[in-house]
Order: sequence, then C-alpha cells, then structure tokens
Amino acid sequence: MKKIGEVSNSNIHIALVHFPVYNKSGEVIVSSVTTLDIHDISRSCRTYGVGTFYVITPLKTQQEMVERLIGHWLTGYGAEYNPTRKEALLKTVVKNNLNDVIKEITEESKKKLRVIVTGAKKAPQSIGYEALKKELQQEEPSLLVFGTGWGLEKNLIQNADHVLLPIEGINGFNHLPVRAAIAIILDRLLGLRESSAD
Amino acid sequence: MKKIGEVSNSNIHIALVHFPVYNKSGEVIVSSVTTLDIHDISRSCRTYGVGTFYVITPLKTQQEMVERLIGHWLTGYGAEYNPTRKEALLKTVVKNNLNDVIKEITEESKKKLRVIVTGAKKAPQSIGYEALKKELQQEEPSLLVFGTGWGLEKNLIQNADHVLLPIEGINGFNHLPVRAAIAIILDRLLGLRESSAD
Repeated sequence: MKKIGEVSNSNIHIALVHFPVYNKSGEVIVSSVTTLDIHDISRSCRTYGVGTFYVITPLKTQQEMVERLIGHWLTGYGAEYNPTRKEALLKTVVKNNLNDVIKEITEESKKKLRVIVTGAKKAPQSIGYEALKKELQQEEPSLLVFGTGWGLEKNLIQNADHVLLPIEGINGFNHLPVRAAIAIILDRLLGLRESSAD
Repeated sequence: MKKIGEVSNSNIHIALVHFPVYNKSGEVIVSSVTTLDIHDISRSCRTYGVGTFYVITPLKTQQEMVERLIGHWLTGYGAEYNPTRKEALLKTVVKNNLNDVIKEITEESKKKLRVIVTGAKKAPQSIGYEALKKELQQEEPSLLVFGTGWGLEKNLIQNADHVLLPIEGINGFNHLPVRAAIAIILDRLLGLRESSAD
C-alpha cells in the first residue's frame, strides 16, 4: 500500500473553468471567480499533491483579482499570518483559456496530455474511477477539468479524452458545489486509504 | 453492489460545532458561522442522504442568522429561484450545543447514539474508514462531529465513542477546509462506488 512520501501526483493538474460555461438558462457565459473556490480548491490540490491548479477566466479584471489574492498570501501580510494558505497557493495560477493550459502542459512535459472533463451527466466516452485511477498512474500528464455555473460548454466535453462518471448521490440529488466535487474526486483518484488504520 | 434508491442513511447525522473549538492560539472560542458552510455542507449531506445536519452555536444572533438563511431558501423568494438549495436545506437545523443534539437523537430513536468525532490528529480511540463503514450499517444512530476554527475542544474528543482517522494528504499537508473534509468523509463512508460504471 502507498505511504506518505512515496507518491507524487505532480503530473496531474486541475483546471477550474469560468468560460465557456452555461448559466441557469442554458446560455454560454463567463461566470465570476469566487475567491473561496480558489482557497478551498488550492487546499484540496495541495492535500493530494496535484501539480498545478489552473483558474481559467478570460476577464482581465478577474485575472488581476486572482493574482492579487495569490500575491497577498504568498508574499504579502498573509504569508506571515497564515503559512498554510501560502503553501496551498504555491501552485495556483490564472490562465486565459483551456487551450493555453493544454499547450503549456504539453510543451513542458513533451508528452501527450490526457484531458478528462467532469460534470453531472454521463457521456459516450465516460470513464469510471477505478479505470481512470489506473490511467493516472501512467507517465503521461493528465488534466482534470471542472466547470462552474451550470456546467462546461458542450464542445469542451466532446473534445475531451474522457468524461469522468458523475458522483452519484442517494435518491438522485446531483447538486454538489464544485469545491466539494473536486475534493471527493481527488480523494477517489489519489487518496491514500487506511494506510495508518492498523 | 448498492444502487440508488436502495440505501437510506437517515440514521446518520452530522454536527458542525462552532463552540467549544480552538482558535489559532489554542484558546477555546466560539467561531463564527459561515453561510457558505451551511449551503455546501447541506448539499453534501443531501447528496449522501444524511439524516439531519446540525449547525451548533450558542450565540443567539448567529442562530437567528442561520434560521433566516434557511427560511429564505425554504419559504422565501429563494425557494422559487433555486429549488435545489431548498431541497438541500430541508434537513438543516441550528442547535445550542452538542449535548442537546445527542439528547434529541437518543430520545427520538430510543437507541444508544454512537458519537464519532473527526479532526486532523490521531487519538487512542481512532477508527479507520472501513471499520466505521461497517458500524454505520448497524441499526443504532450515529453522529459525525466536525469542528470549525482550529478544531474541537479536547473534552469533546475524549468523550466520543470513536475518533475517525484524519484524511491523510501527500507529504503531510493537513489543512483541508471543513467543507471539503465533510464531502470526502461522507463519500468514503456512504458513497456509491462504480455502481453505473459498467
């Protein structure tokens, strides 16, 4: 069984997409960045040793807001006040769009990037957790893509290598916050289990 | 394997404790209720079919704030605007203290309540996820207790039947937001796995 220190998930990355996503009425929109998403998801990523957490928005003002937030905790007063926030945010970056992220990871790794989208619906190329877990242990980098608002625009889903099966609730309730979905999915795919239970 | 509709976790409850908890300096304090915790944790509880989500604070103003929030989404304009929030909040209640919650569940179920505390540290009565999962399938009700701030006051931990093993991160990072920890723990203990993968 895997033990702390024996694993590295640095070739597994997360993208949180604010455009293109749907709103409540099914229109394609740019959703607003939520500062709490940045903190929560950065902590979950750090907990499971994720490589980079990409916050994706094309809006310059929102990009600046995320960079200001990160700067405050990395080098501002926040770094001293709460060092665990600093540690969590070390690998959080903001990008214009998903294509830039895919290009960057591919160029840096010089390997084909596996793109896995997530969401509340099943799709023809759906993959289960156990099958994806095995794929993630291979050498190629992987990018897990999460939508905000009412979900990722359909072309993003169609162009992905895999669509991860949705998290099934009891009695069909299917409305987890993206913060919770990311935490659960990282734990299912990368969590250490029972390593110190006995 | 369990399928949707075949399971009920209505005898498993969650408590989010705002007093007594520690602050950064190790003093016992009342932490503030975060409205986003209420929404996120209610959604996670609803997803996994948890019985009741108890928000625990002795402060009257904070109790009223939680009740106003729940009222807005259950019967106010929010109920129409976003029915999934309504559904998530149907079993969220606010209570003065943990003893009141323990007393209420015990009286209603007429059975001994199993109290399981969670946190970032191991303890002598620590229990692993697989062992607790089996216990939760028994008839007696269970209460999973989560702290806010810098964690539950030590007497709460000492008096519990079990202390759940902490979620282990890679390289020892151990600072998940309570919202994420609750989502992960519910998924580990109550999640349906791969039920529609094949």
